[in-house]
Amino acid sequence: MSKQYVIGIDMGGTNTVIGIVNARGEILYQTAIDTTAHKTGESYADALSEAVNTLVEKSGLKDQIKGIGIGAPNGNYKTGTIEKAANIEWAKGIVVPLAQMVSDRTDFPCKLTNDANAAAVGEMTYGVAKGMKDFIVITLGTGVGSGIVAGGELIVGHDGLAGELGHVISVRHNGRVCGCGRSGCLETYASANGVSRSAREFLSEKDTPSSLRNIIDRSITSKDVFEAAEEGDELAIEIFNYTGRILGEAFADFIAFSSPEAIVLFGGLAGSWKYLEEPIQKSLDENVLNVFKGKTKLLLSELKGAEAAILGASALAWE
Amino acid sequence: MSKQYVIGIDMGGTNTVIGIVNARGEILYQTAIDTTAHKTGESYADALSEAVNTLVEKSGLKDQIKGIGIGAPNGNYKTGTIEKAANIEWAKGIVVPLAQMVSDRTDFPCKLTNDANAAAVGEMTYGVAKGMKDFIVITLGTGVGSGIVAGGELIVGHDGLAGELGHVISVRHNGRVCGCGRSGCLETYASANGVSRSAREFLSEKDTPSSLRNIIDRSITSKDVFEAAEEGDELAIEIFNYTGRILGEAFADFIAFSSPEAIVLFGGLAGSWKYLEEPIQKSLDENVLNVFKGKTKLLLSELKGAEAAILGASALAWE
Repeated sequence: MSKQYVIGIDMGGTNTVIGIVNARGEILYQTAIDTTAHKTGESYADALSEAVNTLVEKSGLKDQIKGIGIGAPNGNYKTGTIEKAANIEWAKGIVVPLAQMVSDRTDFPCKLTNDANAAAVGEMTYGVAKGMKDFIVITLGTGVGSGIVAGGELIVGHDGLAGELGHVISVRHNGRVCGCGRSGCLETYASANGVSRSAREFLSEKDTPSSLRNIIDRSITSKDVFEAAEEGDELAIEIFNYTGRILGEAFADFIAFSSPEAIVLFGGLAGSWKYLEEPIQKSLDENVLNVFKGKTKLLLSELKGAEAAILGASALAWE
Repeated sequence: MSKQYVIGIDMGGTNTVIGIVNARGEILYQTAIDTTAHKTGESYADALSEAVNTLVEKSGLKDQIKGIGIGAPNGNYKTGTIEKAANIEWAKGIVVPLAQMVSDRTDFPCKLTNDANAAAVGEMTYGVAKGMKDFIVITLGTGVGSGIVAGGELIVGHDGLAGELGHVISVRHNGRVCGCGRSGCLETYASANGVSRSAREFLSEKDTPSSLRNIIDRSITSKDVFEAAEEGDELAIEIFNYTGRILGEAFADFIAFSSPEAIVLFGGLAGSWKYLEEPIQKSLDENVLNVFKGKTKLLLSELKGAEAAILGASALAWE
């Protein structure tokens, strides 16, 4: 009998969530551990593997589990390592061979990649990209991530780290300064943080009346902009139009690269889809090379937020 | 016995060149026909296939030939068709299923793609990208073309037309007007024509003395700029520095996409490599995302100009 279950592990900066998933993308058993309560990768791998083994025991499915997939910050698909994850104490500045460590401690084969690549494999396995061989997932969260599938395979590059479309610098020449040390990266405009920055810029540059002007210290979040837009705030809607325009321009270039059947939007900011869809589509139509016009669908992920990351990671184990 | 020869066909706007090639990339027999002397695709396919059949007859290698590869303008790898090639009378505005037509008339399996993709497969089979699984070929000619290989496979996209990196628009926001109808495309800066445009711009904007000022009507070609640089002309060298800087910025974004082991430069303008290499490398180092820094080699194609196109096309037939 072929094995019918996989384990998905979503390693976040705070918690790590573990689920046993069936081929229809249903999470049957679930548990979690603290990501931060460890000083070394060894200690984290011990705790994680123990949680996995306990969950497997509880499920009674051990012989029917095909393997483990892990989505992790700075995860390298080719090597199964976490590479210098700045936000995780025990992975800062070093390379942790987590896939191998978990495989050794659980006796399951284990694959690992970054969150956006896991999302892409998840969409291909259980989501809106089911059956597609060429598509790109763009994760719009605090930053912007991407997972690129071409010819049915994840593009991982020669070093396992390909697909950093949040850091294409060409969005605006000498544009906004990015956390990566360069200027003009897509994520300085099109992430949740990018939307906050746009809000602060628009408020100081424009005279449009806006409820956003009432927010103390102008510490405006993308959620504030969304809520203002929901109340018909003109400036808030302008901010989403601007964000969508820049995303559409960037997508035009992504399409020139890999000519995907669809671009799938995923992540927190994708919650503002109702304000982003139209400006993205309009900008894409205006900016895409003629030969590709009208060929690439814009889709919103239908995987549920909390479950999506586990499902994405679990999908790696079917590969 | 496995078949040890392939046929490469390079379809140019004027001539179509046909060669029988061995596994070491040597062209053993060669012939050519006129591309333009035909009113229909049928007539062209008849003449081309007759030339192939005659060459095969002459070689006495019929039973050892594995197949035919064709490199053609607007060639679609997925469908084997030529799609609306504006510069070829019998292919203007229509789709010509040339691979199938040639296969029917020669009894060899036949693959077809555009020139830049053929160049990429050629570099992987016989050239500097031998053994690489992730690389990008950039053809710097009258325009800029590209062939992208990821995980050992050509990226062709869902419609067979992926890899139009000459038309990423983000090089300069609202930049130079391109023949494609948009603005800011890479090829408006980094092609032979782009270099001419830079020369005209620099001559009118700068006071630097230059022998290029003597050229009548300022109808300066990239060859003029190269020759001036060879004589130490400061402005000519500035023009190549500018071209290289823009290429380096674009390459930084290509690397964020597919993290290639190498970017291979090919085509007429690559003849100015001695003036382009340093500014491209410098700009790439300054602009590439930290995690990719120093990882991607810049290489110049070593395939000989006249033969390269036949070899590239022939390499498709080994796939």
